Amino acid sequence: MTAPMEEENLQRVKMTEALYTDNLQGFRDEFIELHPYDQALFYSSLEKELRSKVYLFLSPEEMATIFEHIENEEAEYENLLSEMVPAYAADMLSEMYADDAADVLNELGQEQAGSYLTIMDHDSAVELKELLSYEEYTAGSIMTTEFVAIEANQTARSAMYILKKEAPQAEMIYYLYVIDDQSKLVGVLTLRDLIVADDETMIADIMQDRIQFVSVTEDQENVARTMRDYNFLAVPVVDFEQRLLGIITVDDIMDVMEEEASDDYSKLAGVSDLDRVEKNSFTAASKRLPWLIILLFLGMFTASLIGKFEETLSQKAILAVFIPLIGGMAGNTGTQALAVAVRGIATGDLENESKWKLIIREAGTGLITGSICGILITVIIFFWQHDLLLGLLVGISIFFTLIIATLAGSLIPLVMHKMNIDPAVASGPFITTINDIISILIYFGLATMFMSYLL
Amino acid sequence: MTAPMEEENLQRVKMTEALYTDNLQGFRDEFIELHPYDQALFYSSLEKELRSKVYLFLSPEEMATIFEHIENEEAEYENLLSEMVPAYAADMLSEMYADDAADVLNELGQEQAGSYLTIMDHDSAVELKELLSYEEYTAGSIMTTEFVAIEANQTARSAMYILKKEAPQAEMIYYLYVIDDQSKLVGVLTLRDLIVADDETMIADIMQDRIQFVSVTEDQENVARTMRDYNFLAVPVVDFEQRLLGIITVDDIMDVMEEEASDDYSKLAGVSDLDRVEKNSFTAASKRLPWLIILLFLGMFTASLIGKFEETLSQKAILAVFIPLIGGMAGNTGTQALAVAVRGIATGDLENESKWKLIIREAGTGLITGSICGILITVIIFFWQHDLLLGLLVGISIFFTLIIATLAGSLIPLVMHKMNIDPAVASGPFITTINDIISILIYFGLATMFMSYLL
Repeated sequence: MTAPMEEENLQRVKMTEALYTDNLQGFRDEFIELHPYDQALFYSSLEKELRSKVYLFLSPEEMATIFEHIENEEAEYENLLSEMVPAYAADMLSEMYADDAADVLNELGQEQAGSYLTIMDHDSAVELKELLSYEEYTAGSIMTTEFVAIEANQTARSAMYILKKEAPQAEMIYYLYVIDDQSKLVGVLTLRDLIVADDETMIADIMQDRIQFVSVTEDQENVARTMRDYNFLAVPVVDFEQRLLGIITVDDIMDVMEEEASDDYSKLAGVSDLDRVEKNSFTAASKRLPWLIILLFLGMFTASLIGKFEETLSQKAILAVFIPLIGGMAGNTGTQALAVAVRGIATGDLENESKWKLIIREAGTGLITGSICGILITVIIFFWQHDLLLGLLVGISIFFTLIIATLAGSLIPLVMHKMNIDPAVASGPFITTINDIISILIYFGLATMFMSYLL
Repeated sequence: MTAPMEEENLQRVKMTEALYTDNLQGFRDEFIELHPYDQALFYSSLEKELRSKVYLFLSPEEMATIFEHIENEEAEYENLLSEMVPAYAADMLSEMYADDAADVLNELGQEQAGSYLTIMDHDSAVELKELLSYEEYTAGSIMTTEFVAIEANQTARSAMYILKKEAPQAEMIYYLYVIDDQSKLVGVLTLRDLIVADDETMIADIMQDRIQFVSVTEDQENVARTMRDYNFLAVPVVDFEQRLLGIITVDDIMDVMEEEASDDYSKLAGVSDLDRVEKNSFTAASKRLPWLIILLFLGMFTASLIGKFEETLSQKAILAVFIPLIGGMAGNTGTQALAVAVRGIATGDLENESKWKLIIREAGTGLITGSICGILITVIIFFWQHDLLLGLLVGISIFFTLIIATLAGSLIPLVMHKMNIDPAVASGPFITTINDIISILIYFGLATMFMSYLL
């Protein structure tokens, strides 16, 4: 995107060469000019020996900025840190924005994280321990403590003075948070408001006192929704007494959104953890096998169910012909209903409407799709096999199957949500198999009942 | 989140009452204090008659801020605009940020959009027509033209002066873009850099001259990836001569991310357009029926395939018992491979590695999962049915099916991507059905070949 490809390559070659020849100045001249993300890309693509030279050429502070742009999925934090002198690594961690440093420590083993915290400067260690104590996926676990706080009875000029002083450390300087002497959040001010204000204006007069904030225990998905709805660049995080604990910035929220979307998607497909790149067939297989083996046993159960109807089948083998059709339709309509319910829960649309309304609507949807598909299939089979009874049997099975499968697809995630289980766990393959079983029971149940007419 | 629930309700009642009693001041006192998103929520939840009073109580400029926070999915732009006096609507549109106004116009019919553009002030109309000319899903279609541009040979003080003047209009003032006299983008500066700089510093000395930008024709998904990787709050959009055309802000990128994630998810589930709230059973059924009917016909094809093996089946009815098992495993492993490939393409991870590597890895994955599941099922059937040959038949079918289904799941989206078709179109149900057919051909093909041994 930035410079033309060739120029970029040339630069990469230059930097690598400088590392090989221990040319500190030559390396720094090129490297420092790069955006931290590009620095991170270059650094993590290096071989181990060259990377160890980077630690000699860059200060822990410079390394901190790079580390803020590395994701654990792309390069293992543990490996990278183990290449550094422990004191250098600890310095780097304390220079990083607290939320990013906490992310790194979270990925390490408890013992290793603890050892870095011990040799780190005391203030950073206390701050990081605090952040590490929040539960995963809560606002607390993704917030940072580097925000700019001012007081209501200041002038715009003095607020600007504080801002200039704190700007180099703060992660986000475009929102200023106004707190009282108890650290309670009483207002918020954008840098835009501050810039257009006269120097002598009091902060109390220009701050917003209706504040959107999130609780430290709030689910990160809800935080993401708030930020998206209100178009915020950051949102303040408070405790139960509305004391300001930290802020969550929009770059972390983009990561949360990506993570949550990827998570829902993988669960619908029945693959665990799509986020990590699959490095070889063995890691790929190990991620897919758990679901396949569960499905295999569920499938054996389905098989044993059909086995009970073996006599019916041997009398009328044509019945077998429609098993995949009925099962496929049941599985698909269930997945559709599931997807609607899971997205509805995820986007919060379902929070505002009664669950009964959803269930009635889904029953109606099943009734409509079931009637149309049922009639269609009866007609097709009649013209194809010239067997009205067989057509009716398959059509009526489709009718009931679609209604029940649609209801199952929406009810199961709702019940799970009620029980505080992530509804996306009721993944595609699970719902599909449940509905497979239901469809077979309906189809062969009806077939056995009407056997005498069919023969 | 903000004020306690009761207070919020009280406020809503007060505002509604003020509207009923035509109490302009009472309404404005409460309403103006709200965040635009909350204003939008209140406004779009009102009944039509009350909404028409809002237009009398608020200026087009105030209404513009509200409209920037309404999504078409939640309230139809067309209906809302038709309630306003046309001149008021046109004024409002010209006061909105250009990208948001273009979004609204895009949702209207060509004729209606044209009529607003005709009565709008000339400058806004020209700007909007320009934005409307970019293709959907490109950077151009989501960018805004309200950015702050400065020159390299200015001092920090004079840049700050420009900023203060333009702040009320600009959508994003936290990045300043440095252009030359040809409008070419030559540098970028954050407001943070500007604030900490001395008044007399030249912009050329503090600006970043390695700039990340996107081309106006770039796909919005790639723009989102750039912003997420670099943690940007905005990214500049340029034409082929690197002239600055506009910027894309992070709030719009969050919408893009949500939209793209939702799109991939719905396609995997075989539902069109999950974004819009399903209002009743009929709209829900109309969105799900297309896929169900396609599946019905594909299912009839599968049925006719099995029909060819009716003789085999009537000789050995137990064969039918394993149809759902084999079909289910094939469908699921295909969906897994599909999900991995679609995500890989979406996140760009696949761009960096050769397609052949992926195909070989997937073939290996199929080989491993096929072997393990195949052996497992042979053993289970042997102990359950005491029929080694039947076990081998099902096991070998699973073995081949999983290999081919895994390959199909990854190859089909890759080929589609190559052909510039959105790979997510090869949705879950489609891959599942293809693999259903493959599995049946393998299973019954093998069964027919070995029939003499099986009986």
